[in-house]
Amino acid sequence: MSIYDEMLALAEEAKSAAQIVANLSSGIKNQLLIRMADALEAQQSTLQQANAKDLVAARERGMATAMVDRLTLTAERIKAMADGLREVAGLPDPVGEVTSMWLRPNGIQVGRQRIPLGVIGIIYESRPNVTADAAGLCLKSGNAVILRGGSEAIHSNSAIGEILQQVLAAMDLPKGALQVVTTSDRDAVTELLKLEDQIDLIIPRGGEGLIRFVSENSRIPVIKHYKGVCHTYVDRDADLKMAEEICLNAKVQRPGVCNAMETLLVHKDAAAEFLPQISKAMKKSGVELRGCSAARMIVPEMAAATEQDWAEEYLELILAVRVVDDLDDACAHIRRYGSLHTEVIITNDYNASQRFLKEVNSSVVMVNASSRFSDGNQLGLGAEIGISTTKLHSFGPMGLEDLTTRKFIVLGSGQIRS
Amino acid sequence: MSIYDEMLALAEEAKSAAQIVANLSSGIKNQLLIRMADALEAQQSTLQQANAKDLVAARERGMATAMVDRLTLTAERIKAMADGLREVAGLPDPVGEVTSMWLRPNGIQVGRQRIPLGVIGIIYESRPNVTADAAGLCLKSGNAVILRGGSEAIHSNSAIGEILQQVLAAMDLPKGALQVVTTSDRDAVTELLKLEDQIDLIIPRGGEGLIRFVSENSRIPVIKHYKGVCHTYVDRDADLKMAEEICLNAKVQRPGVCNAMETLLVHKDAAAEFLPQISKAMKKSGVELRGCSAARMIVPEMAAATEQDWAEEYLELILAVRVVDDLDDACAHIRRYGSLHTEVIITNDYNASQRFLKEVNSSVVMVNASSRFSDGNQLGLGAEIGISTTKLHSFGPMGLEDLTTRKFIVLGSGQIRS
Repeated sequence: MSIYDEMLALAEEAKSAAQIVANLSSGIKNQLLIRMADALEAQQSTLQQANAKDLVAARERGMATAMVDRLTLTAERIKAMADGLREVAGLPDPVGEVTSMWLRPNGIQVGRQRIPLGVIGIIYESRPNVTADAAGLCLKSGNAVILRGGSEAIHSNSAIGEILQQVLAAMDLPKGALQVVTTSDRDAVTELLKLEDQIDLIIPRGGEGLIRFVSENSRIPVIKHYKGVCHTYVDRDADLKMAEEICLNAKVQRPGVCNAMETLLVHKDAAAEFLPQISKAMKKSGVELRGCSAARMIVPEMAAATEQDWAEEYLELILAVRVVDDLDDACAHIRRYGSLHTEVIITNDYNASQRFLKEVNSSVVMVNASSRFSDGNQLGLGAEIGISTTKLHSFGPMGLEDLTTRKFIVLGSGQIRS
Repeated sequence: MSIYDEMLALAEEAKSAAQIVANLSSGIKNQLLIRMADALEAQQSTLQQANAKDLVAARERGMATAMVDRLTLTAERIKAMADGLREVAGLPDPVGEVTSMWLRPNGIQVGRQRIPLGVIGIIYESRPNVTADAAGLCLKSGNAVILRGGSEAIHSNSAIGEILQQVLAAMDLPKGALQVVTTSDRDAVTELLKLEDQIDLIIPRGGEGLIRFVSENSRIPVIKHYKGVCHTYVDRDADLKMAEEICLNAKVQRPGVCNAMETLLVHKDAAAEFLPQISKAMKKSGVELRGCSAARMIVPEMAAATEQDWAEEYLELILAVRVVDDLDDACAHIRRYGSLHTEVIITNDYNASQRFLKEVNSSVVMVNASSRFSDGNQLGLGAEIGISTTKLHSFGPMGLEDLTTRKFIVLGSGQIRS
């Protein structure tokens, strides 16, 4: 069987299973996720044996220690995967919700009702926990899921997939509802991306290279999660103590994630007071600052920022700093260099806050709060499948609702069109 | 300048204009549309002179009469375009609406607010009225628009574009807000489809060939509007008089459109009574029936349907007829052959209506009403930009709201993440 035929058969099985998953009650879906959680914990040693094979191969290939760490399935991480599934089981079921309904003059009632998307393909790298996390979110929202992880985690992902499929079988549910693509053939992804009649959505999770490859080769709609070049703008009328706390939190609390601050913009009238204050605080936390010339006039020990710094997602303890003339200038900088992820204004000026909220069209726009809140859990969506930086379908953190679409339902009593 | 550079410059102009259009008040946008409507009517003779060039070229190329008719800009059609713009001006503005807002335990308020998509590309064939209709919907929803019509309408579309741009200029708005691609270079579309950093959404409007070409070549998200193979299922417990009226309306009232019925499914217990009745009525309206063998046992003069008939979008007075065992069988047929557009059940059985509504996941699912209501205007969305048969972003008839996305807004008072 060619790799195309193999992927087609797998996708057809998913499509047929999707019909069944779409109509499961919330109770059954929750029970499924809880039993999956229990099975992962019960079969911890099986998982760790499979994981050991990946770890041996990784070390033989000389994988960096940080990467090996991400790949490792410790007992704690297995418990975290299981707890993640239990948490999703506890979230409200989006499927079936009628979000609005209205009456037309001719007497027909028209409503919009949430339904699953159908079949979702997740293409990801490294961390094996994505296998269980993504599966839980897709199943809870009534979708079938096809999971394709990186080759470096193939034994771990296969083992997780097998355990989850055993639970499906024990509950008389089709295994097509959750499939892990285990072939080592590198063309598997390319072939999957052609199956627009079977797969409804592709979500790539990983580095920019993976996301570009998927979006350039897919005939299936893709929701992309590119980088987060998040800005914090300290306005003229900011509370500078609050500004310091928020900036520190946004940069330092967890620098390696996409909602960490990468660029600080400071109003020119606040710069003389705020820049020395924040420089001192950042220095204490080990943050390297790279500033524009105006910033360096005030804090000369700052390194000089280059044009490239403004577009950089450092993901480490480095911060670009720019003095701006006013709010317009700040917004223009964000439009030019931002990645549509998350932007923050610190201000006590009502009008400035309103203008920033209106004029900045990134996926998350905040007043007086840390960009680190830009996360599905923190914003109250429950679990999160990712953060979309493209505007179609979903923009920003995506929860269960974002894995559904809406159909129109029409209740008539014999109406015809004249 | 290469065609790529030309399209890039045009798209950059659109992107920069989109910033301005996004922040226009509803009042200014409505005034813009009303003045555009007035200008089209005032310059009727200019439009008809340009249109005459297209008509001469069409006749020289031997274009079919029906196509020439679609291409013709009569005085009535120019008035209809203008009235269309006035109607859109009268619709509620979706931009800025906060669809929901909630409080998190830490005191931040989180809301979701509608914003424009940015730059929308419309790629269409034939009818020049699309130029004004699509422009009105895109501008009212705060987007910049790039319009690329068919080469057969190039003079008409250019003339409409020039008139609309004059109104933009008169109101001191950037002409990048609305641009008609007038180059005859066939690569213009291919190059536009690569500009994912400038264009946010592509909507192809036209035949299946155009839609396939666009979706296979685009790096930009595409909302597709494929064919409508719409089913009406007459249940065992249907009111057969109502069923007859609805079926006739769905097939005959306007057979050439995507929401016309193409396949009739009849429960086996209703077939003996209903098939002779509907055959007679359809025959009187000039409809050719093509039936399965069970249907032809009851109405022998029916032609035999082939496998191909079940998937056919006839768009003319032909109807495929199949006798099904029960509701499950009807749903299975729809899943296998349907196009996810619109499906109808005629029944007086409460449980059957609920099961059909739940189990059929086409974009519009109706009980006891004609499929001809599957249209943005009829369902109450105001004007319509198309009917999406793909599930991502929008599914079914698309109105102004579907040309927006939602950002998260967060109102804090100094919160940081712990």
